[in-house]
Amino acid sequence: MIIVLRSGATSEEVDDVCRRIEAMGYRPHTIRGELRTVIGAVGDDRGKERLRALESLECVENVQPILQPFKLASREVKSEPTIVEVDGIAIGGRRLAIMAGPCSVESREQMFEVAAKVKAAGANVLRGGAFKPRTSPYAFQGLEEEGLKLLKEASRETGLPVVTEVMEPEKVDVVAEHSDILQIGARNVQNFSLLRRVAETRKPVLLKRGMSTSIQEWLLSAEYVLSGGNPNVILCERGIRTFETATRFTLDLNAVPVLKRLTHLPVVVDPSHGTGHWEYVESMAMAAIAAGADGLIIEVHPRPAEALSDGPQSLKPERFAQVMARVRRVALALDREA
Amino acid sequence: MIIVLRSGATSEEVDDVCRRIEAMGYRPHTIRGELRTVIGAVGDDRGKERLRALESLECVENVQPILQPFKLASREVKSEPTIVEVDGIAIGGRRLAIMAGPCSVESREQMFEVAAKVKAAGANVLRGGAFKPRTSPYAFQGLEEEGLKLLKEASRETGLPVVTEVMEPEKVDVVAEHSDILQIGARNVQNFSLLRRVAETRKPVLLKRGMSTSIQEWLLSAEYVLSGGNPNVILCERGIRTFETATRFTLDLNAVPVLKRLTHLPVVVDPSHGTGHWEYVESMAMAAIAAGADGLIIEVHPRPAEALSDGPQSLKPERFAQVMARVRRVALALDREA
Amino acid sequence: MIIVLRSGATSEEVDDVCRRIEAMGYRPHTIRGELRTVIGAVGDDRGKERLRALESLECVENVQPILQPFKLASREVKSEPTIVEVDGIAIGGRRLAIMAGPCSVESREQMFEVAAKVKAAGANVLRGGAFKPRTSPYAFQGLEEEGLKLLKEASRETGLPVVTEVMEPEKVDVVAEHSDILQIGARNVQNFSLLRRVAETRKPVLLKRGMSTSIQEWLLSAEYVLSGGNPNVILCERGIRTFETATRFTLDLNAVPVLKRLTHLPVVVDPSHGTGHWEYVESMAMAAIAAGADGLIIEVHPRPAEALSDGPQSLKPERFAQVMARVRRVALALDREA
Amino acid sequence: MIIVLRSGATSEEVDDVCRRIEAMGYRPHTIRGELRTVIGAVGDDRGKERLRALESLECVENVQPILQPFKLASREVKSEPTIVEVDGIAIGGRRLAIMAGPCSVESREQMFEVAAKVKAAGANVLRGGAFKPRTSPYAFQGLEEEGLKLLKEASRETGLPVVTEVMEPEKVDVVAEHSDILQIGARNVQNFSLLRRVAETRKPVLLKRGMSTSIQEWLLSAEYVLSGGNPNVILCERGIRTFETATRFTLDLNAVPVLKRLTHLPVVVDPSHGTGHWEYVESMAMAAIAAGADGLIIEVHPRPAEALSDGPQSLKPERFAQVMARVRRVALALDREA
Repeated sequence: MIIVLRSGATSEEVDDVCRRIEAMGYRPHTIRGELRTVIGAVGDDRGKERLRALESLECVENVQPILQPFKLASREVKSEPTIVEVDGIAIGGRRLAIMAGPCSVESREQMFEVAAKVKAAGANVLRGGAFKPRTSPYAFQGLEEEGLKLLKEASRETGLPVVTEVMEPEKVDVVAEHSDILQIGARNVQNFSLLRRVAETRKPVLLKRGMSTSIQEWLLSAEYVLSGGNPNVILCERGIRTFETATRFTLDLNAVPVLKRLTHLPVVVDPSHGTGHWEYVESMAMAAIAAGADGLIIEVHPRPAEALSDGPQSLKPERFAQVMARVRRVALALDREA
Repeated sequence: MIIVLRSGATSEEVDDVCRRIEAMGYRPHTIRGELRTVIGAVGDDRGKERLRALESLECVENVQPILQPFKLASREVKSEPTIVEVDGIAIGGRRLAIMAGPCSVESREQMFEVAAKVKAAGANVLRGGAFKPRTSPYAFQGLEEEGLKLLKEASRETGLPVVTEVMEPEKVDVVAEHSDILQIGARNVQNFSLLRRVAETRKPVLLKRGMSTSIQEWLLSAEYVLSGGNPNVILCERGIRTFETATRFTLDLNAVPVLKRLTHLPVVVDPSHGTGHWEYVESMAMAAIAAGADGLIIEVHPRPAEALSDGPQSLKPERFAQVMARVRRVALALDREA
Repeated sequence: MIIVLRSGATSEEVDDVCRRIEAMGYRPHTIRGELRTVIGAVGDDRGKERLRALESLECVENVQPILQPFKLASREVKSEPTIVEVDGIAIGGRRLAIMAGPCSVESREQMFEVAAKVKAAGANVLRGGAFKPRTSPYAFQGLEEEGLKLLKEASRETGLPVVTEVMEPEKVDVVAEHSDILQIGARNVQNFSLLRRVAETRKPVLLKRGMSTSIQEWLLSAEYVLSGGNPNVILCERGIRTFETATRFTLDLNAVPVLKRLTHLPVVVDPSHGTGHWEYVESMAMAAIAAGADGLIIEVHPRPAEALSDGPQSLKPERFAQVMARVRRVALALDREA
Repeated sequence: MIIVLRSGATSEEVDDVCRRIEAMGYRPHTIRGELRTVIGAVGDDRGKERLRALESLECVENVQPILQPFKLASREVKSEPTIVEVDGIAIGGRRLAIMAGPCSVESREQMFEVAAKVKAAGANVLRGGAFKPRTSPYAFQGLEEEGLKLLKEASRETGLPVVTEVMEPEKVDVVAEHSDILQIGARNVQNFSLLRRVAETRKPVLLKRGMSTSIQEWLLSAEYVLSGGNPNVILCERGIRTFETATRFTLDLNAVPVLKRLTHLPVVVDPSHGTGHWEYVESMAMAAIAAGADGLIIEVHPRPAEALSDGPQSLKPERFAQVMARVRRVALALDREA
């Protein structure tokens, strides 16, 4: 941390700040500039957050962090990329992880039809929502346990492992039992009780970015899982909230190279939620791979106009197959496989 | 909903869309413009969300909602203001609700000192965090049950009712037992399992706006509580996330008159989190009252430079007393009391 | 500036960075932390911007500015508040500046009617647009020179000084001739050629914040005018762009106390553009004054439903009179006058 | 436009609104829903903006536009893609436009070195800034006319056409004389006087998106140039302002497929400004091409650590050559050339 003092701070004030820094277990290092005095606090990072409280002193202009606050998620602690193994698929490896399926599990028929078709088109993980976080209490809330069972059956039928969302600590066990990857949705990225609970399962976790979560905060949420003893975290960029309304969210592909620099965790991209419109999914899926993502998660529905959720952004299976063909070409150009 | 067709849509396509609208239980109403055909879907709102799926049709340009999607929270369903009664205090009435106390309960001594002083300065509700949602797993996470007990004691000592945060469904009962108002934090505004659970308690709920929650979405979160049978919802504006970094968040006071137009629920404002800096709390507290807010929630700590959380934005008790004196003058100018 | 090196930077790299810092005229000051080396660059601020280029070195993690980059606009250079005198009105003094009038000058009749009525209600500056920056080339673009003349006439008739927008350097002279305050609109806040040109006139300048201009950048735009020799700058907050669509922009009242801390320049607030809707103007006008603003600029039109621009946010004269009555009460509560 | 009335609007009010719609030259079309009456205004779009003023009526809830407000820029008016010819290069065609060069022209030596190297690496347009819009008045402001001459010389030497920024109407002629493409920078995207002036030149215009300009507003700015008689507009996405600070801006690649759907104009992407950091340029350049962009504009400097502007985001020539090699592979995978 760097503590910037106000201009005109007295030497008593400088001494007071230094004493407080020492009392918190850090070594103060003072730089007297022409206009201001700046004090660096050197020492173990673990609790540096507390130094921020110095900003409440009248003589302190502001307190600026210098280092990234996450550890286990950082490249500094682990420089080689993490590969999350799911049922024989190495997420983060040379081959892309392609997760596809409907927004919501709606029926056995729908689920089996989609599962077979996305597999044929090249998907290697099946997605589907059984517990649905819906903005409105009047919207379809998912088939819940019944949906989990249908997912599991479709998984057995096709051999594809399953990723599905869990929304509350009490449901972690039942969801874990019926799935291979636990998805933490955007609205729960800072549901810390839930993060601690999924850490305990040791199952792979797909951690979506919140719609207004900074990359740093997102990695701190990953840190909750990692420090809880579960190293199997997959990050998923799914769009942030900005002023632009031409897309439902603003898919932030910049996050891909930024994450590749900061962390060893694998990164997948969700162009369906990120754009909110089926016509934009293909372009952004290809762009995500070109940006260096390790995979995609895409919504596919046999009859989007009748979908109970997310119809506007769902691809028909045939369209998904076309997208896959083009994604494959981009992947090859970058020496990856899909 | 208004369904806007692409230019050049054929009459077969128009008919197909109309048939689909009818199949979902609505009455289509077609307007043929010079360039486009637009179809209004008339009927009960409850499930209009499903009409959005029509956007997945090739012939549909977009689907636009016309009405606000919340009902119980709206002025149309209940035009007179809701007053939430808490231990003799009428939140939403002529007298302002002034909630004050430390970010985190840290010790009996701290809690009792603050409680006595904020009461003396004019606060009528005591705040304090026992379960703390912290961005970093390495930051102080609260005293938990121990903190709840200290809060309850301070409440008995001063006679002030208590508002405190609950972070997960499993803790709702214990938090409800020790407090008078259940706070749903900004990060949990769309934690729908938690919303459903606090609805069951019938206790007053202070529902904070999420940092990127639109006013419409926020009211839909309130609708989860209201439709769960709990009419005692207090909305709390606490700052949204924008590009501006001079303040920690951007306290959106525009939300106050917007909410007063849209909903009958009382609205309080949190200038501490909204600005993130103690020097800005006074101005924004006064502005909130002038904008029409029904109350304030303010962080107060006896020694902010030593606070375990939110030190930069905490007021010392003496400063809080000054703020109250000025807030009172603004309140009087608007025929309210504080 | 603080230059943060990557972990593992060699001592040759540290030396190289220090040499470069010296070559740019600064004194390097090295702090070796447990994980990182951090180098402070001490010296005259004027060109510190150039130090940012060090971020292009492989061994540099990032370069962080410590000080605010503006000078003449800062409280450190001039601690007492600036008062801008306009035709006997002291903007920034105890009495509030109330600027009111139509968005666009549309006709002599409209202009005279509004001018008389806003004066009667307590306005002390007349506003009106002759050159209009319109998002669409097909929208009404203003009466231009003809509008300036009508403004000037209305000013003579009522004795109110005039504020009006100037959009390009070539028009500065003619606008200056017909008005008392030159308004720089939100879209031109970083039109540096225009800023330099209005600086030359020495006339008071009302500098609106851009819709995505940070407070720091805004003060740097003010610095263009101040360093061009014109000390008469009035800042005007008018709403920033955020994800929220319930209001046209998000009026950022937090900017008021932030500016009062950082700068000596007077600050006025525009609740008409900031909210975009007439029903929200009263609340936000009162909130602005309670936050500490030195004045308001409000759009008033005799028949808003027929206005050629900004009808939705324009007040009728009678409504404006009511707003003024309430603003006056808030002002008095804060020992100011309106 | 759709005019949504408040619930409880009387039939007199409905009639009044219909009369006003007719008075403005539109045909009203009323839909009576269960809760609300909604009125569509049918007719020529040109002035529909004026209908928005109806929102000022007490009985009107809001006014919603249905159609995109731009015309000449739209796919509906011109369905085939526009190709802008610059000195034998077809921007918008199968071959990508690769514009590269320094942020600022600093010296003949720098300019010639970069020009030769970017040409060798595969660039087909030379960029360089002579007039620089700088946030701070104390930062390097460009070599101005001297810079234009150096650019022109480098162009002659290499045979590469030149793109450079023009900041004010009075300089359009001199910049047009020394360059092949006139760049309108992000800060001037709504400098309407400047847009009208560059329209008159009939020269190709590279129109950058503003940092908070919606795609719709950006296309309306393009419409100023098109309706001024200049069809040669190239759009350039360069990053928008969001809450995320890990990148300088958030490069919004979603804009590429959105623009491809809405407009026939060619689209290029600026990953240098969009990310603000050299390490992210390669990934985002590849992603831009994969998303369907027609070209790139990239900052290259022989010694970024000594650059007078934008050092952190500038590539060294060797790095640029590597980026080009990878971009070429992505282009080939998509049947394009670079």
